[in-house]
Amino acid sequence: MPLRLLVIGGVAGGATAAARARRLDEHAEITILERGPYVSYANCGLPYFIARQIEERERLLLATPESFARRYRICVKVQTEALELDRAGQRVRIHGPDGDEWLPYDRLILGQGGLPVRPPLPGSDAPHVFTLWSVPDMDRLDAFIATHRPATAVVVGGGFIGLEMAEAFHERGIATTVVEMLPTVMSLMDPEFGVQVARELEGHQVHVLTDTGVQAVHTAEREVELTTGVRLPADLVLFATGVRPELTLARQAGLEIGASGGLVVNEFLQTSDPNIYAAGDMIEVEHLVSGRRARVPLAGPANRQGRIAASNAMGVPMPYGGALGTSVVKIFGATAGMTGLSERAARAAGFDVGVAIVHANHHAKYYPGARELSLKLVYDRTNARLLGGQAFGHAGVDKRIDVLAMALLGRMTLHELAQVDLSYAPPYSSANDPVNVAAFVGENDLAGYSPNITASQLADALQSSAPPLVLDVRNPDEYLAAHIQGALNIPVDDVRARLSEIPRDRAIAVHCKSGFRGHLAARILRQHGYTNLVNLTGGWTSFALECSERQRKGQLTPQLQCITG
Amino acid sequence: MPLRLLVIGGVAGGATAAARARRLDEHAEITILERGPYVSYANCGLPYFIARQIEERERLLLATPESFARRYRICVKVQTEALELDRAGQRVRIHGPDGDEWLPYDRLILGQGGLPVRPPLPGSDAPHVFTLWSVPDMDRLDAFIATHRPATAVVVGGGFIGLEMAEAFHERGIATTVVEMLPTVMSLMDPEFGVQVARELEGHQVHVLTDTGVQAVHTAEREVELTTGVRLPADLVLFATGVRPELTLARQAGLEIGASGGLVVNEFLQTSDPNIYAAGDMIEVEHLVSGRRARVPLAGPANRQGRIAASNAMGVPMPYGGALGTSVVKIFGATAGMTGLSERAARAAGFDVGVAIVHANHHAKYYPGARELSLKLVYDRTNARLLGGQAFGHAGVDKRIDVLAMALLGRMTLHELAQVDLSYAPPYSSANDPVNVAAFVGENDLAGYSPNITASQLADALQSSAPPLVLDVRNPDEYLAAHIQGALNIPVDDVRARLSEIPRDRAIAVHCKSGFRGHLAARILRQHGYTNLVNLTGGWTSFALECSERQRKGQLTPQLQCITG
Repeated sequence: MPLRLLVIGGVAGGATAAARARRLDEHAEITILERGPYVSYANCGLPYFIARQIEERERLLLATPESFARRYRICVKVQTEALELDRAGQRVRIHGPDGDEWLPYDRLILGQGGLPVRPPLPGSDAPHVFTLWSVPDMDRLDAFIATHRPATAVVVGGGFIGLEMAEAFHERGIATTVVEMLPTVMSLMDPEFGVQVARELEGHQVHVLTDTGVQAVHTAEREVELTTGVRLPADLVLFATGVRPELTLARQAGLEIGASGGLVVNEFLQTSDPNIYAAGDMIEVEHLVSGRRARVPLAGPANRQGRIAASNAMGVPMPYGGALGTSVVKIFGATAGMTGLSERAARAAGFDVGVAIVHANHHAKYYPGARELSLKLVYDRTNARLLGGQAFGHAGVDKRIDVLAMALLGRMTLHELAQVDLSYAPPYSSANDPVNVAAFVGENDLAGYSPNITASQLADALQSSAPPLVLDVRNPDEYLAAHIQGALNIPVDDVRARLSEIPRDRAIAVHCKSGFRGHLAARILRQHGYTNLVNLTGGWTSFALECSERQRKGQLTPQLQCITG
Repeated sequence: MPLRLLVIGGVAGGATAAARARRLDEHAEITILERGPYVSYANCGLPYFIARQIEERERLLLATPESFARRYRICVKVQTEALELDRAGQRVRIHGPDGDEWLPYDRLILGQGGLPVRPPLPGSDAPHVFTLWSVPDMDRLDAFIATHRPATAVVVGGGFIGLEMAEAFHERGIATTVVEMLPTVMSLMDPEFGVQVARELEGHQVHVLTDTGVQAVHTAEREVELTTGVRLPADLVLFATGVRPELTLARQAGLEIGASGGLVVNEFLQTSDPNIYAAGDMIEVEHLVSGRRARVPLAGPANRQGRIAASNAMGVPMPYGGALGTSVVKIFGATAGMTGLSERAARAAGFDVGVAIVHANHHAKYYPGARELSLKLVYDRTNARLLGGQAFGHAGVDKRIDVLAMALLGRMTLHELAQVDLSYAPPYSSANDPVNVAAFVGENDLAGYSPNITASQLADALQSSAPPLVLDVRNPDEYLAAHIQGALNIPVDDVRARLSEIPRDRAIAVHCKSGFRGHLAARILRQHGYTNLVNLTGGWTSFALECSERQRKGQLTPQLQCITG
């Protein structure tokens, strides 16, 4: 008798699981239940259709119930809800176009994903207020834009979807503001990256408000009222405030839910019921760097988990290794990406954290079109192991993030990153890739050869009761353009000759534009007996970001001022 | 007394070593000897200046003797040859602008690089015949072009420099032919990539002749005579036929030379003389995949070796891990890249080789601008370990090569590549990156779940005495456009219904356009009792390349014909 496989959820993880199951077992009876009207659509593509960067809606519809039947002999039931899971009886009560029925299963795979959160605020259910998660969501939003031609939009939430949709609205000619409750947008990344992302948005006339919540949507006035009391015009409101896992059925059936709020699965993606597997946004997985159970609701892992869940459900053992949380987002012409732990997450997880930041050209400086890339490595000071990476720039960001993802997967150290041969010709990189260079910086920090201080640490130190002396080793013209108040300016090439000007009884923070000349100067000083000495990683470029952010937030005290010439 | 460090060679490895040495030891006496007039220039950028993609020659001159003195207190002696190395006396006899002298050293670092080979053919020393290795080479060539305005050029050698220079000549309006002695250009890569590179060149009106040598340069006639007897017009000839390590001094001093023809160093880049270290193109290193000693004359490793040699020479132990041979080349709008072992090199090294090829979109198919990328993984069938990767395409090639380089460094298997979370949003990749997908293909091959055959293996089999039946599971329109003579066409979705048409007593090779539908069909057939069954990896796309190459070489027998509709 053929095995009966039931898959609940027909998008990323579920659709993948069903197709893989068919390839493994030609004779199984495979059914997909999908709550919505579409199966296996490109949910990550929805914002680009709103933006009209994708012009044909059909391109997002990757498969149909008919194509699944034709190619895989899989029965797809759309607009069909799973109402009740009877684990003892191995059956699911469903409600679809033909009414209710009980469907029996031998193996069940849950790929129900998540649902966007819509905060219960006054007006948040008004007809001009949207979320974006499915093709019908997209269609409703698109029809609204076509019909009502909104002039203004407020996007609540500055994460991936919020930023992609803010860009999309802008592309449709709608004046858009992003409102984020946290101190920066892209809050999975460290603040200096969120600041760069916000600048890119502002540079394209998308307004960004951080540290700001929404308290009401006023429908008649077409306004959004912020927690600050300010009211913003908003002919259109999008809530992009996160997604919660769809666990109604799992809870009802008594499957174990983890502390992270996701469904518990073992390494074979098997739930607490051995006949039930799960994949995608609804589960919690092992984070490969922290080792903790976490929710990592991303499309890539969901697809790979679907493949693995199906293998195990069909009796072909395939362990799931865990997730890295690698992610990337396009912001107009820029890209922000991350993998593994941010500095903040690494500190929160209790690691002894080191940080190396470089601002380097994405390919050889002398080759046309070189763009500056900010790259940050977070590492464990006790063993030099990489813990995470983040990058921002206008070219080459995703490449460096992928290299770092591989390093995390291989539990590599800075020493391996310092030596790896990445592809080099002038149109692609430099002889030492920015990844190599960032690893050199980290190695020099750990060896005590050139200890680093971060921009945030330096700003704190300068606002403390015992501020260090800042030694700015840039050229006078760079110094005059903008510098830290009170900094001593001695260009790196003059340091040897002007040692007498540099006090020996004070802590010294050296900096240049992006870190390299500061490193040279720090090495000279250290060998001339200066030991209470750090180099600002990322240099002035990183410090200016920190400073302008503190200024914006009114946190610049008289002790810390940046002087612009 | 300060340590006296002498560095011979002032470009990639040598210049890096000297600067690193200074950072490690502020008080050492450091001298660089450089034979040419320039120090630390961008040798990889020379072709792009000839192409005028780089317009300012000064951009290639990264440093000067004066800037080295100012910043590093390093004495650079340009136009200075090292004539004799007296190891017992720890001194080097030099010849420079001020005559001869003996320079003493405590530590010596050799970074002498290589010299381009100019075959001793009749006419190969004529004034219109060039090699390109240094800034003076570039200046001579550039002046020749400006003065003589050549209409035609022959580039001898189809490796990195040959291809970059062919493009450069084309950009300068010179009708150019590349002549390569081996069966394909880019012969470090497997033939199917060389074929794609040649097509790209031909598509830009750069002519390519393979399996062809040069036997003479006829100066008066401005012709090059090929080994075939054909004469090509050539107002300008460039030999790009490889580089030999500069070992004159090392040989004279009796330093150990390895079987690969490079200078022997230990893991600390120390030569057979403990006071002498070496870095760059002149040494042999451990190849990280094969474990063999090999020459890997590339700019990236040279720079990193310079850093490491200096650390060890200055008493800071830093082992060198070895090289991967990662390399990349731009051919007009296309990119070809590789890391680790090619299929051919892996077979030659005795591995039990498996191959997986995908032709996938470099980012989500539904997002505008997706370009097809050919990606090949070479793996060890005994343990699934990755041995190498190659790619060709118009976007995203260097990223995938770098991911695979990291996998090689981490000695990862297909199973890790199948699961890794690479950065995904539609403008950057697909939910499963082409690297993931290629690893799936390899996993399915190794599991026996869907064994692969390569295009070359299938072509051989079809020309053998017992050819397999070819089952083409593409759609009829694809089949009609072009197919393998004698192939049975049953679209994948019809396979189940038409099993009776598929013989059970013959070996079957299934194929589709790029491999996926073939895999589906192979799975269906296997579960219906067909066991003598393989799937063509890379599908018709790979086979058409193989076929056209065999046709071009007159190797298509009547048994193997591709029928074009």
